[in-house]
Amino acid sequence: MLQFIKNADNLKLYINKISYKKLFKRIIMIKIGVINVSDRASAGIYEDIPGKAIVETLNDYLTSDWEPVYKVIPDEEDEIAAAMIKMADDEGCCLIVTSGGTGPAKRDVTPEATEKVCQKMMPGFGELMRQESLKFVPTAILSRQTAGIRNNTLIVNLPGKPKAIRECLDAVFPAIPYCIDLIDGPFLECDESVIKPFRPKSS
Amino acid sequence: MLQFIKNADNLKLYINKISYKKLFKRIIMIKIGVINVSDRASAGIYEDIPGKAIVETLNDYLTSDWEPVYKVIPDEEDEIAAAMIKMADDEGCCLIVTSGGTGPAKRDVTPEATEKVCQKMMPGFGELMRQESLKFVPTAILSRQTAGIRNNTLIVNLPGKPKAIRECLDAVFPAIPYCIDLIDGPFLECDESVIKPFRPKSS
Amino acid sequence: MLQFIKNADNLKLYINKISYKKLFKRIIMIKIGVINVSDRASAGIYEDIPGKAIVETLNDYLTSDWEPVYKVIPDEEDEIAAAMIKMADDEGCCLIVTSGGTGPAKRDVTPEATEKVCQKMMPGFGELMRQESLKFVPTAILSRQTAGIRNNTLIVNLPGKPKAIRECLDAVFPAIPYCIDLIDGPFLECDESVIKPFRPKSS
Repeated sequence: MLQFIKNADNLKLYINKISYKKLFKRIIMIKIGVINVSDRASAGIYEDIPGKAIVETLNDYLTSDWEPVYKVIPDEEDEIAAAMIKMADDEGCCLIVTSGGTGPAKRDVTPEATEKVCQKMMPGFGELMRQESLKFVPTAILSRQTAGIRNNTLIVNLPGKPKAIRECLDAVFPAIPYCIDLIDGPFLECDESVIKPFRPKSS
Repeated sequence: MLQFIKNADNLKLYINKISYKKLFKRIIMIKIGVINVSDRASAGIYEDIPGKAIVETLNDYLTSDWEPVYKVIPDEEDEIAAAMIKMADDEGCCLIVTSGGTGPAKRDVTPEATEKVCQKMMPGFGELMRQESLKFVPTAILSRQTAGIRNNTLIVNLPGKPKAIRECLDAVFPAIPYCIDLIDGPFLECDESVIKPFRPKSS
Repeated sequence: MLQFIKNADNLKLYINKISYKKLFKRIIMIKIGVINVSDRASAGIYEDIPGKAIVETLNDYLTSDWEPVYKVIPDEEDEIAAAMIKMADDEGCCLIVTSGGTGPAKRDVTPEATEKVCQKMMPGFGELMRQESLKFVPTAILSRQTAGIRNNTLIVNLPGKPKAIRECLDAVFPAIPYCIDLIDGPFLECDESVIKPFRPKSS
């Protein structure tokens, strides 16, 4: 799509078909932050599988062009918070997805970092993800995953295991494009054979 | 009922039947605060449909005489908090129900105002209302509705859409009369063909 | 088991069979704090039924040797918090279970005391317990029960009624042994015909 509209004539054709607002949102590249929070992955001891699993899942979902802003960092609250602020404020990510660091262990501080940088918390995300994971393992209640809003950016915590990442994203993603609309982010379009985003008609 | 007991002879008959405590609670008019939080409704751009939907639903539920204390205000945290404090502390409302302002958008601050004025938060209300709304729309997780206690007043946030208001109230109202008993409020009686309040036998 | 390994020869046999780490955890007596929060039970007006119900349930669950550290205290935030700190920091309890004080009434302050002494809150416990109790009573949403971590101790709030205590423990206990593993506590073993603890294979 971006290639197509870079040609001025095609752009004119394209503008005739869709509204300026949508056009504006489409021609600005959508950026999504992906943070793998893991002491061992950041030290190179583990391969960064969770981060890649998130990018792969988002590629499956989204038909909109998008660009990942990618980071692997240790379980340090200040580093996680700093990465989130940079991705939200400087890089302009409309969505930041984290993996890992949501358990009860001493080093698990991803929800704390999320709460620190957000103005609004969204408890419904954590509730639904835990409920979803409870279908598979009773230890789902040990996950403290949450979500929140920093200005125009939605931040969502996911678990660290690739299988659980997909289960959780499948559960909450249908609400994410509309959430991003509501915080004045870009218009995300999805492959509806993979995931069905929901936008209320009145909006 | 109030009409009936205003006659002194009837009052005597009535006192013979029920305890003084219940009588005391019954003859003081029950007040319920209804706050429609909406920039557009408060500016007169929209009709105040949510506020009316709440009053109508409570009329359907309650057989106790009650009086609404009604307000339409913009999405301003301080104004919402001030209205809640006035209704709780000055007007003596046992229950305050809000509509709107619970989403992720910048102007949505009703949960923040609620948290500000309450001593105790009641997470079970938000959890159940989101779960109920999830049966209808996946975007239910975007609602940050909550509930809390300020002294002898229960404050409950509802969504802004009339259909969702009724769904949420139907889900949580069965617990509300007992909750108000526990915070020393008046004894609410309901039309049990419409809604079944639950009071544990030991109480 | 403890009797058996107190004999040096038996100990040698035993060591051959299990890892040193497990051995170390097994020979240190497991302590679990049980706090019945109740003005009336602490004043001797009520019998302490909830506290006994918790001990009985844990005896049903656990095959590991364990020792209760037991306390009945009034609904005073500071006293509850002090008891929790003592059980966690001085007594070395890996788990503290409270009953009562989680409702909306003025004297109900157990969740506040819990939040005060914990570094990390575990919202999944309260969510699941309320959901479980909702199968029986609609007033389950009035319970503000929560859980959290203080250093190497998991603290879990339960309701005050014996029937509800068992229902809630049955729901969350399968996740507790693994949670205690993650916070470097002792290895809890259960009678799997009564309760099935879950430990992910990768752990």
